[in-house]
Amino acid sequence: MDSLEDIRRLKYRYARSLDLKRWDEFADVFTEDATADYGTRATSEPLTLRGREQIVSYMRDALGGNIITVHFCAQPEIEIAPSVGDGDNADGDNADGDTAEGTWCFEDTVIVPDHRIMIKGSAYYEDRYRRENGVWRISHIGYQRTYELMVSFDDMPSLQLLANRWADVPQQV
Amino acid sequence: MDSLEDIRRLKYRYARSLDLKRWDEFADVFTEDATADYGTRATSEPLTLRGREQIVSYMRDALGGNIITVHFCAQPEIEIAPSVGDGDNADGDNADGDTAEGTWCFEDTVIVPDHRIMIKGSAYYEDRYRRENGVWRISHIGYQRTYELMVSFDDMPSLQLLANRWADVPQQV
Amino acid sequence: MDSLEDIRRLKYRYARSLDLKRWDEFADVFTEDATADYGTRATSEPLTLRGREQIVSYMRDALGGNIITVHFCAQPEIEIAPSVGDGDNADGDNADGDTAEGTWCFEDTVIVPDHRIMIKGSAYYEDRYRRENGVWRISHIGYQRTYELMVSFDDMPSLQLLANRWADVPQQV
Repeated sequence: MDSLEDIRRLKYRYARSLDLKRWDEFADVFTEDATADYGTRATSEPLTLRGREQIVSYMRDALGGNIITVHFCAQPEIEIAPSVGDGDNADGDNADGDTAEGTWCFEDTVIVPDHRIMIKGSAYYEDRYRRENGVWRISHIGYQRTYELMVSFDDMPSLQLLANRWADVPQQV
Repeated sequence: MDSLEDIRRLKYRYARSLDLKRWDEFADVFTEDATADYGTRATSEPLTLRGREQIVSYMRDALGGNIITVHFCAQPEIEIAPSVGDGDNADGDNADGDTAEGTWCFEDTVIVPDHRIMIKGSAYYEDRYRRENGVWRISHIGYQRTYELMVSFDDMPSLQLLANRWADVPQQV
Repeated sequence: MDSLEDIRRLKYRYARSLDLKRWDEFADVFTEDATADYGTRATSEPLTLRGREQIVSYMRDALGGNIITVHFCAQPEIEIAPSVGDGDNADGDNADGDTAEGTWCFEDTVIVPDHRIMIKGSAYYEDRYRRENGVWRISHIGYQRTYELMVSFDDMPSLQLLANRWADVPQQV
């Protein structure tokens, strides 16, 4: 058991299940009481979501159909709290506690083929994690954007979308 | 010996030697019988390559001259098989076996200065690894694209290529 | 103490403090005698900086105001020198020395809203690290660009900058 590697993989599973629209796997990365604070968005006010169900519902609704997303995460800076009663590590075992915090850089790409737009941006995640029954999950996810920009395909007449994993998925109504 | 770190570095060496066109170093990341399944491509049908030699030859031919490539990999989710006869880990040594599987996200950029085009995309790799004589190599590499798009420099008259590591390398004929 | 993880986090702190313009935190990632060799730049000759103070001053001046930067780093290939007198590891302790080298891939985005330009590129860092009083710092940072391109917003009339963390920061004079 290596908590640091467990938490890294948790975050990678978050990004992969989100981008591959595997909503059951996506739900499983969150604690039931998880909160999400996705900061400003291209299309709306600051977005705060409360509870695993609300987070998953929001994403499933917002990112369904043939919308393409890539959330590309790296640069983990993770701090695991020491276990209770082990703060001084006097016994040298330096045991991991059951909560942790982490910062990540990410770049995201969102392509909405039906609206002929592409959104690109970057932000630093500031997450919290909690271990329950030996399993690390995300208890809070949040970020403040470094930047976000949107451009229309109309400005690039030559642009061809050569591959879209979701091309055969009809647009959601 | 840390197999997880060895496999991560193997993958990073794959990306770096590919983008820096160091074909001998690139060849050395693959087992001799390695297979590659690079999914749909901008310019062709699904691409399947068999054997280290075929993979290296294909890349050397396709990506020579002054073509710029960046394969940027992150988000490793690696599973190392337990060593044979150690499946239950009853002895607690939890020894690594000699095969592993891994998933990675990547974003790629391909710039073909002579054709004035840029290709951008992302996919999830699904790789297999094998350890022979203590050295981990890639035995299979594959991906399914999340998206891939191509745009011509003609749509961006202001675009300047300020640096190209391969600028002095003549286009391959 | 895990030197490999310490050095990875050092590099992530470099990128994060640079992009978030936290100059005190940025200064602290370098040894006092650190050198930087940032290769060719969009706007100037090859850039070589000597000493922590010069590196920090350069960045603070070049990247102030409402300029947006993202330095996105991944693919660490880090070699830690063995401790002196431990080269043969005959005693099996394989102790880490106090110097290390590392290669990283990165992609950078620079947006200068006031000049309506965006610069994108990629390079491989070739860094050196040194441990002093138990703390790893960057003693040399350098890269050779794979590519760098610049494009004006004027070519994309639809482009909207939806978020800029530095929007309220006045342009530096």
